Amino acid sequence: MVIVSRNNALVKELASLKEKKFRKERGAFLVEGGKMVRECAASGLEIMRLIVREDYGGETFSLPAVRLGADAFRAVCDEKTPQGIVAEVALPRYPLRPPEGSCLFLDGVSDPANVGAIVRSAVAAGYREIYCADCADPFSPKSVRASMSGVFFARIMEGTREEIFDALKGVSMIAADMSGENVFSFEPPERFALCVGNEGGGLSAQTRDRARYTVRIPMNERTESLNAAVSASILMYELKRKNFMNG
Amino acid sequence: MVIVSRNNALVKELASLKEKKFRKERGAFLVEGGKMVRECAASGLEIMRLIVREDYGGETFSLPAVRLGADAFRAVCDEKTPQGIVAEVALPRYPLRPPEGSCLFLDGVSDPANVGAIVRSAVAAGYREIYCADCADPFSPKSVRASMSGVFFARIMEGTREEIFDALKGVSMIAADMSGENVFSFEPPERFALCVGNEGGGLSAQTRDRARYTVRIPMNERTESLNAAVSASILMYELKRKNFMNG
Repeated sequence: MVIVSRNNALVKELASLKEKKFRKERGAFLVEGGKMVRECAASGLEIMRLIVREDYGGETFSLPAVRLGADAFRAVCDEKTPQGIVAEVALPRYPLRPPEGSCLFLDGVSDPANVGAIVRSAVAAGYREIYCADCADPFSPKSVRASMSGVFFARIMEGTREEIFDALKGVSMIAADMSGENVFSFEPPERFALCVGNEGGGLSAQTRDRARYTVRIPMNERTESLNAAVSASILMYELKRKNFMNG
Repeated sequence: MVIVSRNNALVKELASLKEKKFRKERGAFLVEGGKMVRECAASGLEIMRLIVREDYGGETFSLPAVRLGADAFRAVCDEKTPQGIVAEVALPRYPLRPPEGSCLFLDGVSDPANVGAIVRSAVAAGYREIYCADCADPFSPKSVRASMSGVFFARIMEGTREEIFDALKGVSMIAADMSGENVFSFEPPERFALCVGNEGGGLSAQTRDRARYTVRIPMNERTESLNAAVSASILMYELKRKNFMNG
């Protein structure tokens, strides 16, 4: 059976998952495209349902699939050129708890593509614990896409700044800020929380005040700043440089 | 006088600058937004004309400005929420020549936002000479925006791969590729050309063959790759690390 109408109740329900409010309510998010769905299945996250376009002939990972007509399918997708497969996946919910190793704290990062790209780099660089306060939702379609499969593997914990400060008690906070010391001559502590702020405004005053260290990336005088995902990634790698030198 | 129609000849001419073909033909590109226009004026590039929306009340840098009605103005802009000011700027044309210092070679980078973000990081990290073969145009509106003011300050040289290999004769080419040595334990030569490839396909075979060294960014096993602008930026900084340690 193929569902053709975008007004079908199930189609509307799935399309609503493009909005944060409904993702939270239903405890689900969407993953688009064959490669991403395959990696999601391999990650151990629970795929609740597969949604395919009627002409889809690719893999379905032994999962039951709902078939939609082209128009109804487009209503569910966020991508401009959808590949014909989407998964509805149970939203991972990790309670706030102290980090096991060095971790990342995103304080007000507002662009979903930046959040996703930062999660992608964080997983690559071995920062699996990511705390988010006042950020774009890491599980929005744009962020999931930019993260590649990063959001499937990271332990993403959301909370208010105060809740996150509590979880990070005893962990040295390192603030990323233009006023800081040159990160390339900085000696990081064994275990730390790297704190990255908003694209335009930087870190919140509370986080800056709490931080034990402040580091910056040196730049040519003509440049005011780097792309948020770029600078977070340079810092993540540089602060764990010793681990990578033999990696 | 205010031009209101999008069919006005001047408006159509300006709007055509969103396309590479017409930028090359007219030798001009567009810069949007007050901050970017200010930095462009300060960079020494030649602003040929200022275009403002009729309600614009901001700075005009002592330059003559054409006023457009809201609809005509929107036809010229690429941004979703335009600020009311656009500059038509003479396209800088740098002939291919050997680099003075260490430089960057973009080989098939296809996403304009990545090209722009890489140019932004390159200027920040002191790689002012950038060679481009088979890339998205650095002067498209999306790339200019992502570069912040980077494209005003970089010496961007376009050519075929063979032409660029000629210009780089005698310079050690360092290929960025997953098969390479760990960049964090790599000792770069004094002067080099870092070569960065396409988002999906990586470097062209010709460039890989020409490269004297190949380096990779080590990654967690779950991750296949990083965002193109992120990995280019990590490599640019890491390869010049010694310069930055006291920077």
